[in-house]
Amino acid sequence: MPSVKSELRSGAYYDSAVLMQLQRGLLDLPGVLDSGVVMGTRANQELLEQSGLLVAELRQAGPNDLLIVVKAETDSLAIEALRQVDTLLSRRRSVVSGTFQPKSLETAVQQLPEAQWVLISVSGRFAAGVAREALALNRHVFLYSDNVSLQDEIEMKRAGQKKGLLVMGPDCGTAIINGIGLGFANRLRRGGIGLVGASGTGLQAITSHIHTLGAGVSHAIGTGGRDLQAEVGAITAHQALAALAHDAETQVIVLVSKPPAPEVGTQLLAASQGLGKPVIVNFIGYPPPGRKLGNLHFATSLSEAAELAVALSLAGSAPPRPAGQPIRGYLRGLFSGGTLAYETLLGLQSALSPIYSNAPLRDSQRLSDPLKSQAHTIVDLGDDVFMVGRLHPMIDNELRLRRLRQEAADPEVGLILLDVVLGEGAHPDPARELAPAIAEIKKARSLEVVAMVIGTDVDPQNIEAQIERLKDAGAIVFRTPTEATDYVARRMGARPVRAGVPVPAEALNRPLAAINVGLESFYTSLVGQGASVVHVDWRPPAGGNEKLAGILAKMKRK
Amino acid sequence: MPSVKSELRSGAYYDSAVLMQLQRGLLDLPGVLDSGVVMGTRANQELLEQSGLLVAELRQAGPNDLLIVVKAETDSLAIEALRQVDTLLSRRRSVVSGTFQPKSLETAVQQLPEAQWVLISVSGRFAAGVAREALALNRHVFLYSDNVSLQDEIEMKRAGQKKGLLVMGPDCGTAIINGIGLGFANRLRRGGIGLVGASGTGLQAITSHIHTLGAGVSHAIGTGGRDLQAEVGAITAHQALAALAHDAETQVIVLVSKPPAPEVGTQLLAASQGLGKPVIVNFIGYPPPGRKLGNLHFATSLSEAAELAVALSLAGSAPPRPAGQPIRGYLRGLFSGGTLAYETLLGLQSALSPIYSNAPLRDSQRLSDPLKSQAHTIVDLGDDVFMVGRLHPMIDNELRLRRLRQEAADPEVGLILLDVVLGEGAHPDPARELAPAIAEIKKARSLEVVAMVIGTDVDPQNIEAQIERLKDAGAIVFRTPTEATDYVARRMGARPVRAGVPVPAEALNRPLAAINVGLESFYTSLVGQGASVVHVDWRPPAGGNEKLAGILAKMKRK
Repeated sequence: MPSVKSELRSGAYYDSAVLMQLQRGLLDLPGVLDSGVVMGTRANQELLEQSGLLVAELRQAGPNDLLIVVKAETDSLAIEALRQVDTLLSRRRSVVSGTFQPKSLETAVQQLPEAQWVLISVSGRFAAGVAREALALNRHVFLYSDNVSLQDEIEMKRAGQKKGLLVMGPDCGTAIINGIGLGFANRLRRGGIGLVGASGTGLQAITSHIHTLGAGVSHAIGTGGRDLQAEVGAITAHQALAALAHDAETQVIVLVSKPPAPEVGTQLLAASQGLGKPVIVNFIGYPPPGRKLGNLHFATSLSEAAELAVALSLAGSAPPRPAGQPIRGYLRGLFSGGTLAYETLLGLQSALSPIYSNAPLRDSQRLSDPLKSQAHTIVDLGDDVFMVGRLHPMIDNELRLRRLRQEAADPEVGLILLDVVLGEGAHPDPARELAPAIAEIKKARSLEVVAMVIGTDVDPQNIEAQIERLKDAGAIVFRTPTEATDYVARRMGARPVRAGVPVPAEALNRPLAAINVGLESFYTSLVGQGASVVHVDWRPPAGGNEKLAGILAKMKRK
Repeated sequence: MPSVKSELRSGAYYDSAVLMQLQRGLLDLPGVLDSGVVMGTRANQELLEQSGLLVAELRQAGPNDLLIVVKAETDSLAIEALRQVDTLLSRRRSVVSGTFQPKSLETAVQQLPEAQWVLISVSGRFAAGVAREALALNRHVFLYSDNVSLQDEIEMKRAGQKKGLLVMGPDCGTAIINGIGLGFANRLRRGGIGLVGASGTGLQAITSHIHTLGAGVSHAIGTGGRDLQAEVGAITAHQALAALAHDAETQVIVLVSKPPAPEVGTQLLAASQGLGKPVIVNFIGYPPPGRKLGNLHFATSLSEAAELAVALSLAGSAPPRPAGQPIRGYLRGLFSGGTLAYETLLGLQSALSPIYSNAPLRDSQRLSDPLKSQAHTIVDLGDDVFMVGRLHPMIDNELRLRRLRQEAADPEVGLILLDVVLGEGAHPDPARELAPAIAEIKKARSLEVVAMVIGTDVDPQNIEAQIERLKDAGAIVFRTPTEATDYVARRMGARPVRAGVPVPAEALNRPLAAINVGLESFYTSLVGQGASVVHVDWRPPAGGNEKLAGILAKMKRK
């Protein structure tokens, strides 16, 4: 009958690669049927249990305990295997051989002063400490480690932002800087497409597809998966976008992420509108505002993001210039069509913030009183609340004319947007009533009025005459919500890029030199790619014993 | 000094057109500066207040009270204007003249027995009653009225479904049946594009744009804005999709709505996959699963929905047949890449339900234990919870191999989906470890294994050899998540259309004959379009007095 034996080592630190090698080494021993070498987290204990390896004495282990389990044909073979643990651990040989290996980041920087990048892949509980050290030494950070706290991430990114340093990560799987892949990265052709991604395999899938389609990549900057959360505020993504905007090699930019916090997404898109290059946006699982909004192009999948980027880089077209001086006041959209209001809100929420509506896309956008606008506002005047005993605004303009005057009287309003829906059942001549009101407004003060006219050339109202009349009154007229939304976003949307010291252009364009702390395979990969690298023979303070490390830190301070 | 005088009429019913005419009639009287004629809802009182028309005595009015306010140059002119109210109300002349006007729906049906459609636009509180009468008389309902309760909507739609009758609405603004526009509708070319919309102006914007692009519309079926809410379950949309699928004239179908309840959306899309025609989906503000999923094409704006419909109707291509017999078991996706897992979930959640993940798109999808799959499941094995002291699954296949065997042992599993990410930093030869495990699974039982291999032809692992090895083991291999997702959705997604009596094809294809109850302008519009129509000279029970109506109803029952 098979026998399962175990050993628990408290407070010992080994990196993940060492644990994997030990587990495989145990499996190769005579009579061993299965083995498990894991840190004692609840998830890992459950995994051991699923494999029938969780013996009773391990159930009390904590996340910093190392659990070693062997299942062998007999008791004695299992015990013998466990006896080999230290031998197996010591047998492990470093792939980083020959050269002198510094024991600290500080020494490594002295050894390779041109190294602008520090790759960190040590265990999560030590990673922030190493990253802070790197920032203090004025180095950009590629932080592969996961299980780093959000608080640490925010502090590090703010510190980096003040010094013009990038903190890619934590949990950043991928980057390509000046042709050199950091962490996980596909080998690719160089080219004019630059990428920013809060998504490791997202960047890999897009860059691989770009290569397969025959195009190439300038740089791919990872931000870590949480960068676009509200608490972090996309600090790294803002830095990276600005850096790619200034990078001469980058013609087209791709921005990929899981859904951002709404406010963060809006700020990023408003900043992207000001970059002067086409930007392909793929916020996976976030409803796109349409296909295009000024220089922004929205992809609905990773493949499509790659395809759009390649198409735009081949087209080589400059993005459309914003029309005239940007408008600084608020938008007020007064709609008769509920869906037109909704689609317009969808389009504009990505560029204008805060924006409110009585038909909101999310609760935070709900207008507290549908009768009063606040900030940017889109009102559906056909909403049930207005409709008790009143004809629909597509038949009767009364309600809209009153609201139109009310909005025009508000000095904070910069642009009024209307829909005019023609066809059977609708008002026989809406422009006859709307145009004089628009003309009156335009005469009173400088305020833009935009109208989307929905209808066909065979509708009873004579669409051409309706459009002419609205234009004569001073309105700017479009025939689809898409065109109207695109225009309004370009007139009102673009906002300057965030404050902070910009990342210097040379960060991306110097030959890549780096210091690696953690996984040796990342060192090997960098060397293989021709980069200058120093590997730090890093050990956690006090061998990973946190109590002891605390005492040591206290002594140091004294 | 201007004077404001008012009158309050309790429990009186007038339709909205009458109120508008009264308000305008008052404005035309000598010395009248402004006027308001509204039902006494809170919103209407606030609107009066904004115009300086809300006098103190009206503040106690309720929603069923009629408020009449006049602002005139002097007291006496205001009083004189109010004296004209009854004269103005009686002066109003019906546009429906000459013909005999039945007073009830029942008589109307006798007068025009071929009328299959009843248009209802009476005040919300009476609309459900009229609609129920129409259903009892076996007529389809176009219910323009708003302010109808959700409970009434559900009951009416269920009743209609049992009899093969459509209930379009409540709050249905638009439909085009066999070339005749109901409610608000643009005049259009006939053609091969059929539409279903929980969105009035959405349908108008799309159909207008289709016409402008030179193509045409077979039918456009409105459902009312709440049809895709969870409580209603898209009863009308399901009926309408099935009817268009059977309609010979319709080659391409467009489905447009505000975001559906997730479960309702999934059911609609699964049903759409089985229609045998291309379906363009525009769930405005709902993240699309990509550009295409089998015969489903996802648009991100109203304009784009029209453009896709026109392009597909011109292409005239049959949608791809599903590959082989559909798979009935569950999907289990075992991912090393977090973003790949996320994008796959996004793609498949529209076709497979329920689906769970440890990286869910919404909370209801959260896997209660990341170590155990349930129903359809997508696991991100690179999630933090797995990563304490363990190498990433892109480097170390151990965790995935164990999970792979666990899933294969579950008899409910029908398809296993994997990602294989190549490149710098990743495992040097993942197929060497994964392929034997796949071969073992395939040998043990009939189970499909699909792999998406992400990488380039210059990656160190030799992508061609990796793919070959996976294929030899029996896996079906794709190079992008989009292709893999599309394949899985086609293999597992399509579900039969909902139960209920189908709407007979002749409902759409007979020359349109209708009965109109409510707004006379809808009658005029139908007559103008050449349809046979009878207008009912409808009056609410007991003149709109609900107390009296209750007594009458009680007496009737006795």
